[in-house]
Amino acid sequence: MQSADFPSWTHAVQQRLEHTLAEVLPTAGQLPQKLHDAMRYAVLGGGKRVRPLLVFAAGELVSAPPERLQYAAAAVELIHAYSLVHDDLPCMDDDTLRRGKPTVHIEFDEATALLAGDALQTAAFSVLAAQPLCVEPADQLTMIKLLADASGSFGMAGGQAIDLDSVGRSLTLPELETMHILKTGALIRASTLLGSYCGEPMAEAARQRLDRFAKLVGLAFQVVDDILDVEADSATLGKTAGKDAAHDKPTYVSLLGLKEAKRRAAELEAEALDCLSDFGQRATRLRELAAFIVQRTF
Amino acid sequence: MQSADFPSWTHAVQQRLEHTLAEVLPTAGQLPQKLHDAMRYAVLGGGKRVRPLLVFAAGELVSAPPERLQYAAAAVELIHAYSLVHDDLPCMDDDTLRRGKPTVHIEFDEATALLAGDALQTAAFSVLAAQPLCVEPADQLTMIKLLADASGSFGMAGGQAIDLDSVGRSLTLPELETMHILKTGALIRASTLLGSYCGEPMAEAARQRLDRFAKLVGLAFQVVDDILDVEADSATLGKTAGKDAAHDKPTYVSLLGLKEAKRRAAELEAEALDCLSDFGQRATRLRELAAFIVQRTF
Repeated sequence: MQSADFPSWTHAVQQRLEHTLAEVLPTAGQLPQKLHDAMRYAVLGGGKRVRPLLVFAAGELVSAPPERLQYAAAAVELIHAYSLVHDDLPCMDDDTLRRGKPTVHIEFDEATALLAGDALQTAAFSVLAAQPLCVEPADQLTMIKLLADASGSFGMAGGQAIDLDSVGRSLTLPELETMHILKTGALIRASTLLGSYCGEPMAEAARQRLDRFAKLVGLAFQVVDDILDVEADSATLGKTAGKDAAHDKPTYVSLLGLKEAKRRAAELEAEALDCLSDFGQRATRLRELAAFIVQRTF
Repeated sequence: MQSADFPSWTHAVQQRLEHTLAEVLPTAGQLPQKLHDAMRYAVLGGGKRVRPLLVFAAGELVSAPPERLQYAAAAVELIHAYSLVHDDLPCMDDDTLRRGKPTVHIEFDEATALLAGDALQTAAFSVLAAQPLCVEPADQLTMIKLLADASGSFGMAGGQAIDLDSVGRSLTLPELETMHILKTGALIRASTLLGSYCGEPMAEAARQRLDRFAKLVGLAFQVVDDILDVEADSATLGKTAGKDAAHDKPTYVSLLGLKEAKRRAAELEAEALDCLSDFGQRATRLRELAAFIVQRTF
């Protein structure tokens, strides 16, 4: 798919991912039915699939077969989906709209949403361990460790804990960045690195440059998220707009202002692209994806 | 420790586990502090550690080194602990007492309990992938798959979903058994099997006998749990006694009566012991553990 244009490539990856997710999730009607319905509802048919796109784009650096990348991509999307289900619960962000649909605890109930999130996390690790994804099984253990560490208390879950504690009090810019590096950045980095393990061996120095690219893209992603929360409406976002301000949450926009936040996003994109300079043509998708993440409007 | 008596062996395993759990959990004071405090609070210093004991006892069948077993045991205990934290939440069992202490959402808050449970589950998979636990890395992937499948929607989480749906309506005995085979049985089986992967190779037929042993012990465990919920008081149990009847939950006691439930527990123990007949002396700890599980008073 190297020669396809970016929208076609994106569409093809999203379709492949959708099939893979439908394959690894319990089929509709399997007992316990409500739990399985809730899991499928939370995962299928929605979302930009940014993390899976990163898995596939990074996979191009090492000529990774799509038959492996699709499972790594499904695993990160399952982790992302579980985090959204739990994040929307009343005791967390208490949100009712996600991807243009009622959130899981609204469509089902709180207990089912809790268990569905739990079981989606478990499914992510099941998928990563279920079939060979690397030449060496030991590398696959590294992938599992990577995803776990990015999701846990020193990664995504830790970032959510800091985010919760920050409501209503002022954060400095470094504190805000730390929170985002954990909350969204860790999983974006893990997605990119996972793709790089599914093909030819990659030198340590190259992987470090790739990791730095992903870290910068992760920050840019969050800056743009904060901008969109102010500029877009709920219908376009498919989730409640303006909720950062409503919850008195510190954001890049509240700290830097809108204009400076946009400048920062562009700066982060440029720095990210710099990290890819040695990868040549194979990094085309990663470059396009970085631009997509910064220029998106939803 | 083959020659030690059962209480000494149990105590030694519990101590080794406690050290391992303290090692793999974030240390106190590491940011985000409240989340990490809640994770340690949920896991350390309590519980019978039945699942870790099963890991170690099964490990004796294959002469598994304790340096490996301790991580497999820590992983299953982290999964068990996460399930208790989420099970106690207001939208689930809404319980305030666990292991003689306030539950996590009472001691901290609901959001922290939710995230702590999430991060404990993640930590379990991180621990299983962090260092070599088998001669072949491919076997370690099998271990991870085993634990994930036992914990997910076709295992523990699925059993909890069925349990929730059963409150206030009558279950038949086969329905009740299906629920328990998932809710508590799956993790007990996984614990036993995990131990059997940490040492010398085991023949498939032997592993199937071991799995059947674990399945029967898992059921016996649940029958005894139901009996204790009626017969013991909260102080002895360290959790709220009598809550099954209070919640109008079907149990072995409500379906069979107390006397018949006790007969059933003894019968399951005898059937379980039959499965070990070919294992000889190496299965001593598994036999002692089965007796302990059925005869326990807390």
